[in-house]
Amino acid sequence: MDRERQQELREKDRQYVWHPFTQMKDYAAQDHVLIEKADGIMLYDADGKSYYDTISSWWCNVHGHGNPRIKEAIRRQLEQFDHIMFSGLTHQPGIELAEQLVQVTPDGLTKVFYSDNGSTAVEVAIKMSFQYWQQIGQQSKTNFVFMENSYHGDTIGAVSVGGVDLYHAMFKPLLFNAIRVPSPDVRQLGNERTPEREAALVADALDAVRTLFRERAHELAGIIVEPMIQAAGGMVIYPAAYLRGLRELCAQFNVHLIADEVATGFGRTGRMFACEHAGISPDILCLSKGLTAGMMPLAATLCREEIYAAFYDDYATQKTFFHGHSFTGNPVACAVALESLRLFRDEAVLEQSQAAANTLTEQMNTFTSLPHVADVRQLGMIAALDLYRDPETRTPFASDLRIGTRMYHAGLAEGLILRPLGDTIYYWLPLCTTPSQIEDIVERTQRVLRQVTAPLS
Amino acid sequence: MDRERQQELREKDRQYVWHPFTQMKDYAAQDHVLIEKADGIMLYDADGKSYYDTISSWWCNVHGHGNPRIKEAIRRQLEQFDHIMFSGLTHQPGIELAEQLVQVTPDGLTKVFYSDNGSTAVEVAIKMSFQYWQQIGQQSKTNFVFMENSYHGDTIGAVSVGGVDLYHAMFKPLLFNAIRVPSPDVRQLGNERTPEREAALVADALDAVRTLFRERAHELAGIIVEPMIQAAGGMVIYPAAYLRGLRELCAQFNVHLIADEVATGFGRTGRMFACEHAGISPDILCLSKGLTAGMMPLAATLCREEIYAAFYDDYATQKTFFHGHSFTGNPVACAVALESLRLFRDEAVLEQSQAAANTLTEQMNTFTSLPHVADVRQLGMIAALDLYRDPETRTPFASDLRIGTRMYHAGLAEGLILRPLGDTIYYWLPLCTTPSQIEDIVERTQRVLRQVTAPLS
Repeated sequence: MDRERQQELREKDRQYVWHPFTQMKDYAAQDHVLIEKADGIMLYDADGKSYYDTISSWWCNVHGHGNPRIKEAIRRQLEQFDHIMFSGLTHQPGIELAEQLVQVTPDGLTKVFYSDNGSTAVEVAIKMSFQYWQQIGQQSKTNFVFMENSYHGDTIGAVSVGGVDLYHAMFKPLLFNAIRVPSPDVRQLGNERTPEREAALVADALDAVRTLFRERAHELAGIIVEPMIQAAGGMVIYPAAYLRGLRELCAQFNVHLIADEVATGFGRTGRMFACEHAGISPDILCLSKGLTAGMMPLAATLCREEIYAAFYDDYATQKTFFHGHSFTGNPVACAVALESLRLFRDEAVLEQSQAAANTLTEQMNTFTSLPHVADVRQLGMIAALDLYRDPETRTPFASDLRIGTRMYHAGLAEGLILRPLGDTIYYWLPLCTTPSQIEDIVERTQRVLRQVTAPLS
Repeated sequence: MDRERQQELREKDRQYVWHPFTQMKDYAAQDHVLIEKADGIMLYDADGKSYYDTISSWWCNVHGHGNPRIKEAIRRQLEQFDHIMFSGLTHQPGIELAEQLVQVTPDGLTKVFYSDNGSTAVEVAIKMSFQYWQQIGQQSKTNFVFMENSYHGDTIGAVSVGGVDLYHAMFKPLLFNAIRVPSPDVRQLGNERTPEREAALVADALDAVRTLFRERAHELAGIIVEPMIQAAGGMVIYPAAYLRGLRELCAQFNVHLIADEVATGFGRTGRMFACEHAGISPDILCLSKGLTAGMMPLAATLCREEIYAAFYDDYATQKTFFHGHSFTGNPVACAVALESLRLFRDEAVLEQSQAAANTLTEQMNTFTSLPHVADVRQLGMIAALDLYRDPETRTPFASDLRIGTRMYHAGLAEGLILRPLGDTIYYWLPLCTTPSQIEDIVERTQRVLRQVTAPLS
């Protein structure tokens, strides 16, 4: 694209667009990257410069950009029919996707309720759990529990169960009351991490839940959790033992376990779903992002049969779940999701990405010796580290240094789309990333890291 | 599709899918219609039987199904790039669509914030309005006002400003407190409707708002309204004078006017936006459904420059609008929306649909002489009527008769997708519907109506 046209588009971008999660004033001085092409893990700007999409376009992309089978699936579906209503009417892609989701997700989830994005998948879960208890005669069970540092989306219901104050504190007067429990964030152990101390920290976090449940389970509808990794809260990877403990407590005290696998689902953590690391099944499961391989909006909330059964009655009993969105079960999105699942099978995507994940492990180890780096961690194709002025004592950089933002800008110059969360630098790689691409990404990142931190040392 | 395959899919549908807004037990006895093809206003089931999509697949479809230019726009965009993140990165379809939305919407709206569906467009509006007042030092302005009978979506924030108890009452403990004002529903006048009485009813409804604003404007962030027609609340078409009055009151008392044109936008009411009937501009505008011509999920929330400006500051001042969804600004959806706007221009869609709307007026008049019919009403390509046991006295049918559901089933046999709201029968036609199609639809509907009501008379 010629420079004049680029300039025109950039001006219009500033004039008309309000970008998400963006302080638009930051953008006065620094152009957004104008993308013109995407292929595999690579994005190309309007000058033809390439960037690694190291965060899979907000943790969505699975098989790389421009996958020919996905494009063909869209074309094929459009030849049949485009969007139709999913109430009163039904269609093959919506039905077959539901069947396959029930098959690939953890055991015991039997019904699929579609919506459009992660936030709505969580809203559906909350409303479903809430209405369930009302309809089985336990009307006092109206409260929800969430974890410190958790993030479940940006609609008011999802924000109400969010634990990251930066995103949530402002809207307090609009939120319903929910109860916060501690995160089993093993980084709290600092340099004192041992398996024993980790186990003790998990036990303490579970004790807090147990105490709460013992006192108030009769008022609690559900607890919502990001299995294995609290992503937006700082890529907090925690032990599977916590999930196993939570599953037991929820069963014992009759509280729904709601697993938000919007980010972790579809292979990113090395298993198809993060719950598999703990060998558990939730009562309600939220999916989006990777569901369509990151191509287009679609979400699903799955639940156990007993939840569905509590809504299934004569119309006059008024037990219908009155929730829906115009584009629920969009046939094109369902066709894409089906093709993505076929790709998982035909190309043994999970098995293939294991080799890449092993390379990522090796490569992440090379960060540990770099200055300012602490808490290098990884799960499947996700890896993260934290930057500190003094990593020994976990003394942070002054916040006005905006280390993460500096890493972002320096990353662009090195051909990397990084998007640090505060001073946490992370990768969230497409499953198609090859070992040699990972080596290249890490090498570039380490150049960026040295460049950003050297003047501050 | 052969019968065996159909049977298999229907069984899987019942086994795996939880459809939106559906009492699934209703579906035990009656199959959902399995759609296999769609073209223009017609849907075709797996036996090849055709149905008029008289409600535009939940009020979404604009140019008919399978429009070749829309399909080509999707193909073209996929050849360039599929989904990429819209933060830090930007792209031509997202930018150009924002520019065009600012141009085609009512004056004074300058910035576009994308999301995925009507509910999220409303959530964005609520959070934007709320945070605005916090940031300009009017922290007490935290409450929202909504109209009786209104519907703004199904996420917790949207439900909080909803006025249809069937959808909303159940979730009361999760909702924020919002203030209900009367709907200027002129049907309340029954057979006594005259222009003078309508004007008085509108004046009363505005008086209620004025009284509220006078007492509590210092606590009010915004009032949300469906311009001209409360759709899910029963296709309540109200006088434009109400909107003009509301616009004045909001300006006078410094309360945001939030227009939810998710359903009414993009030509359905005979104007590009329903606000144009009253010649007003809101402070915040919510769009979805017709935005992509009903093809795929996309939404936008537009606002005035002064709202945007209250968030534009140095990052450290913490005024960033922390809201976003993974698929925000999806390039394919933006490309579709751009193509739809090109279709509006190239094919003079609004002008063309005027002829159809005139036919609809004539045809709707033929309902008035039928038994059980009252309050025949119309606005552009939307038309509705109510069924009563005795229309003179507005005595309803017994609710367990489920007249609407009977109309739906009898409609299917006559090749119509009707989806009554209670005993309100309505059309929400694609703008491509031709006059002769309208005549055919009305003729079939009248057959259905006679068939359903005759045994009840």
